[in-house]
Amino acid sequence: MESPRSALPPPHYNRLLQPEAQFAQCDHVDVVLVSPRNPLNIGAAARAMANFGFRRLTVVAPYAPPWREARSAVGAPELLASAKQTETLAEAVAGCTLVAGTGTLTYRKPEQPVVSLPNLGPLVARELARGGRVALVFGSEKHGLTRDDLSFCHLLVEIPTDPQQPSMNLGQAVAVCLYELASQLSPLKNAVGFKATEEEQTPDDPAAPSENLDRLAIVIEETMIAAGYSPSSMQAANRYDLRLLLRRLAPNERDARRIMGLFRRILWRLRRASRER
Amino acid sequence: MESPRSALPPPHYNRLLQPEAQFAQCDHVDVVLVSPRNPLNIGAAARAMANFGFRRLTVVAPYAPPWREARSAVGAPELLASAKQTETLAEAVAGCTLVAGTGTLTYRKPEQPVVSLPNLGPLVARELARGGRVALVFGSEKHGLTRDDLSFCHLLVEIPTDPQQPSMNLGQAVAVCLYELASQLSPLKNAVGFKATEEEQTPDDPAAPSENLDRLAIVIEETMIAAGYSPSSMQAANRYDLRLLLRRLAPNERDARRIMGLFRRILWRLRRASRER
Repeated sequence: MESPRSALPPPHYNRLLQPEAQFAQCDHVDVVLVSPRNPLNIGAAARAMANFGFRRLTVVAPYAPPWREARSAVGAPELLASAKQTETLAEAVAGCTLVAGTGTLTYRKPEQPVVSLPNLGPLVARELARGGRVALVFGSEKHGLTRDDLSFCHLLVEIPTDPQQPSMNLGQAVAVCLYELASQLSPLKNAVGFKATEEEQTPDDPAAPSENLDRLAIVIEETMIAAGYSPSSMQAANRYDLRLLLRRLAPNERDARRIMGLFRRILWRLRRASRER
Repeated sequence: MESPRSALPPPHYNRLLQPEAQFAQCDHVDVVLVSPRNPLNIGAAARAMANFGFRRLTVVAPYAPPWREARSAVGAPELLASAKQTETLAEAVAGCTLVAGTGTLTYRKPEQPVVSLPNLGPLVARELARGGRVALVFGSEKHGLTRDDLSFCHLLVEIPTDPQQPSMNLGQAVAVCLYELASQLSPLKNAVGFKATEEEQTPDDPAAPSENLDRLAIVIEETMIAAGYSPSSMQAANRYDLRLLLRRLAPNERDARRIMGLFRRILWRLRRASRER
């Protein structure tokens, strides 16, 4: 599925490329929990929402009333306090233009289009870009979404799991879905974390230049000789191996200096010892 | 990016192209939980492992003894029962050639390369393709991984979260990481990871496992002391730096053996010299 970036974006899509736009986007995505049984799971869902920058939670017909105080909502008590509560899923998604139900296909014959989670992002981005409002709907811990619930959904999102064990914990399912969505919605995060290449993310120094390795090799070789480790018949072969070894290890400049310091010290000690004998 | 099927794969890659291969791959990935406090979180981690096809769990120095019976391990009681328990992280990752610690950078200045979670997959795939063994390490709920824990890690994996609320629930963090890894290790998507190895033409040997680096560190440390290079006030700091240095260098097994041989010889010489004085 093609990314919205690779297609020609509609004109107002530009605002989504601003850093502030992430929050605007996530503010148009509702997380809807239908008949959750365990308040801890509601709190966990709220926590994951806070982790990935989502703020709008709706709880439909919860079993346990005191869910707003769930202690598992670490870092998200306000999110939980301001969550909407409705009696029906219909009410919860009333204002939404794209309703995506979550679940597995193991026990279900899908009646609407099925989208694998990694492919949901572009659909959501497109919907938001054209001014729509999206709901991501999760069923109860025990049964997931009912057939009736699903009839309010435009599509069914499937998290790719091991067919042997498809049933996910509610809080974990929410976390995985929002992680995936955030990676595709947020311009800010795309710039900083998600899109960045491994090289950009790696703050370690570049490898030391060849000449430093050669200087290091000389000191190590002298140390080997001083330690009686490198008999003269082997010295050419050892020098060659050492050169290759240092390139395999590819120390950065600072590390090369440290190793050099250690070997200089050892060499000095060994030479002093042999002078004293 | 072209699929490995379209290129001519080296013979031993064939096994990775079988549908069963994903599970073979996941079997070479250890999930390691360091000092988890809440058995429910251990169970949740096990459940997520089962969801995404991972099987090898190690629990290091857990706070609560009855974690093996955690009811949150829905669908994964056997995984939990067969989990390994160790006293130290060093033991837990002893056989691993690539150890990835997880955490956020908010309160930490990283001392090793940082990889954003979406970029971890290709690194893991490459390590597994060359016969290595990978550990994904999670810290305790309260503090995450300590500086000392991190010194056993080759790299730090960052889950891209909202900077306002970076701290994730342990079970959710495990789920998100394994979701991402599974999506990249599965034979279908391996194309990405394989490309990297193919470019290198000859897949080099895997890095020496963690325990070899620890043994090597002991001999080098003794050498530093024998050479008067490490005053006792600096020994803890030097030990820590040395651990990180060896992980940055990531010698393969043969190179680790050579370096060990050289330092053993030097140590023997230095000690003989000091006996003779």
